[in-house]
Amino acid sequence: MFKLLKKSKKSNARLGKLKTEHGVIETPCFMPIATCGSVKSIDSVEMEKLGANIILGNTYHLYLRPGDKLIKKFSGLHNFMNWQKPILTDSGGYQVFSLAKMRKITEKGVSFQSHIDGSRHLLTPEKSIEIQRNLGSDIIMVLDECAPYPSTKKYIKESLEMTTRWAGRCKDYFEKIQSIKHKSQTKHKKDVTLSLSKSGRLTNHSILRQAQDDNSLLFGIVQGGTYKDLRERSAKQLLELNFDGYAIGGVSVGEPSEKMLRVIDWTAPFLPEDKPRYLMGVGKPEEVVMSVAKGIDMFDCVIPTRNARHGTIYKFKVESKKLKVTEKCNKNFYEILHITNEKFKTDKKPIDKNCKCFTCQNYSRAYLRHLFVSNELLALRLASIHNVYFYLELMKRIRNSV
Amino acid sequence: MFKLLKKSKKSNARLGKLKTEHGVIETPCFMPIATCGSVKSIDSVEMEKLGANIILGNTYHLYLRPGDKLIKKFSGLHNFMNWQKPILTDSGGYQVFSLAKMRKITEKGVSFQSHIDGSRHLLTPEKSIEIQRNLGSDIIMVLDECAPYPSTKKYIKESLEMTTRWAGRCKDYFEKIQSIKHKSQTKHKKDVTLSLSKSGRLTNHSILRQAQDDNSLLFGIVQGGTYKDLRERSAKQLLELNFDGYAIGGVSVGEPSEKMLRVIDWTAPFLPEDKPRYLMGVGKPEEVVMSVAKGIDMFDCVIPTRNARHGTIYKFKVESKKLKVTEKCNKNFYEILHITNEKFKTDKKPIDKNCKCFTCQNYSRAYLRHLFVSNELLALRLASIHNVYFYLELMKRIRNSV
Repeated sequence: MFKLLKKSKKSNARLGKLKTEHGVIETPCFMPIATCGSVKSIDSVEMEKLGANIILGNTYHLYLRPGDKLIKKFSGLHNFMNWQKPILTDSGGYQVFSLAKMRKITEKGVSFQSHIDGSRHLLTPEKSIEIQRNLGSDIIMVLDECAPYPSTKKYIKESLEMTTRWAGRCKDYFEKIQSIKHKSQTKHKKDVTLSLSKSGRLTNHSILRQAQDDNSLLFGIVQGGTYKDLRERSAKQLLELNFDGYAIGGVSVGEPSEKMLRVIDWTAPFLPEDKPRYLMGVGKPEEVVMSVAKGIDMFDCVIPTRNARHGTIYKFKVESKKLKVTEKCNKNFYEILHITNEKFKTDKKPIDKNCKCFTCQNYSRAYLRHLFVSNELLALRLASIHNVYFYLELMKRIRNSV
Repeated sequence: MFKLLKKSKKSNARLGKLKTEHGVIETPCFMPIATCGSVKSIDSVEMEKLGANIILGNTYHLYLRPGDKLIKKFSGLHNFMNWQKPILTDSGGYQVFSLAKMRKITEKGVSFQSHIDGSRHLLTPEKSIEIQRNLGSDIIMVLDECAPYPSTKKYIKESLEMTTRWAGRCKDYFEKIQSIKHKSQTKHKKDVTLSLSKSGRLTNHSILRQAQDDNSLLFGIVQGGTYKDLRERSAKQLLELNFDGYAIGGVSVGEPSEKMLRVIDWTAPFLPEDKPRYLMGVGKPEEVVMSVAKGIDMFDCVIPTRNARHGTIYKFKVESKKLKVTEKCNKNFYEILHITNEKFKTDKKPIDKNCKCFTCQNYSRAYLRHLFVSNELLALRLASIHNVYFYLELMKRIRNSV
């Protein structure tokens, strides 16, 4: 599924192609976040025009609202939101830990109360896989515990061991479904869907399904906090389970940027070269560049859209289609405009005269500033479009340079 | 500037063409409202794709923020918001009466405090014209007092007399500028802008200007509340001033629909056939149809966009490109979907399978409902796009039917 095309001679950066049921993704890549089935304020047609090749959907949010079973009725999230390119879904774990109330972690899974209506739920590794399959995800993530920062070494160790056991259960469940579906398809010459009964047993509904559902990829998630030996331990345990790709989790949880980068140093060497590596929830443009230089292939982050909604706009300083991909921190290739600043009041220039995004092609800084100051909804969308374009262009420049 | 193309044999409905500096508008027409320089949640490029041929900008809002002088630096609102089709601006009066604090009306004008920052302002008839010229409006409205409903006959009578005097001052000021500009252009072979000094005297800056600014139209506004004789009185007084078009104001201020329609009956017969007639702030689809049957050519209303943001969606019941344009109230040609309703939860259909708008071409009712229920920004835009399209399509059907 993943093809390593090139390794940089100057760093650990790699170029690759990741094949999924909904298309091929060139790596390194950035995945804009469509939390509830829409990249906030941007429609799916526009996302495609912006050049996004993969987006991320949040399992926790979609499970609670509108519900994975409803989305399944639409043959998955792709059809529901009218996005026909690849989708990666997270496991739901991160949001259970950051948003839900009254959560309780046991070996079985994590029980929690919905932040929306207080309803009680139990998310097990198997349940997470089932939800993500209902969503029709191209890339499914295992359920992990994303431990808070800072945590004691003892806590992190016990947590990562459980995360490994959960990863194993995810893999087992994922393979069981694939195998039953395969057998059933062979026997009945048609597709089969499986769902988890309340008792936890698999039930077999032989109804017609789109074949594409069968080839989703399953990624493991390395944990281990900011402890070198625990990262190695987690990575090695997960490798034994043989996933389609490996994520580095438990980062971007409040630790300093330097620690996050050390975590990559402590993890990436243990990950197989022929599998994609996904750094979860990172990050600022310079962090993305440094992480690529350390061998990361995939990123997701709320920064471009969330910052856009606060009037924080990213802009390249140079027109060059390349940039230096090194492990050294370099923020010089871009700048940040706080668009509500008084100095933009009469600024007739677009955000970036070299930018090809819809916003820069049509509107001035002064107009965008005015929309923000006047609390006009359009402000949020125009800024989001530009920032997402910036991140996608950043990845293009990185790929051009590796 | 206005050409009456056809008069219906069945009603007082008319077909016309209104020529402005930024293009020709087919009437009857609907003007979506771009209060602060954007039709809420919709960008100007999309507005053009939707088929809008004219939009309305609110002088009160734009004067306070970002300021008409700033917009003048961008050669007007067209360039500022990247909309090259016609713009009508109101006089600012209506919002002064509905939004501003501490307002005080005198013969001179209306003083008020900004609802944004409490700053004190004086809006005179001359000032309103100046602001609208700075905005580069194609159709300028005179300053009027929009009296509240209900008001005593005495109040309405005095108010309309003052409105007439204000209309006269607007006309005088408007013509003075045109004449000075014309002379100056003849003399200096270049354009001239004029601005009002603090003492109220005209000052003459001979700087280069786009010639298009010179051909704006000036509309008078008939007042008179819900009193037949006062409407006639107001209309006759205004006619003597000879405007490019006539609006019926003081409607859509809380009076019942029937009274509003009576006001048209009492006013339209006194308006010249060869000038466009604009019914301000109206209305519901059936009110628009009835008003067209009574001889109205132009409409503006917040209904399509405001209702969209509350999940109230308009939909034609029939595919037919025509509809009955009569004075009889008929709501049967359309229906309203409250999209957050539970019944749309799994509805795979678009809002309207026959609708050609972006929303209907790409998204289901279930998805739109989900976006609303999840408080996603995209909901507001997708619903607004559809409702604006519905109103523009309504006008097309009306024009097809007259």
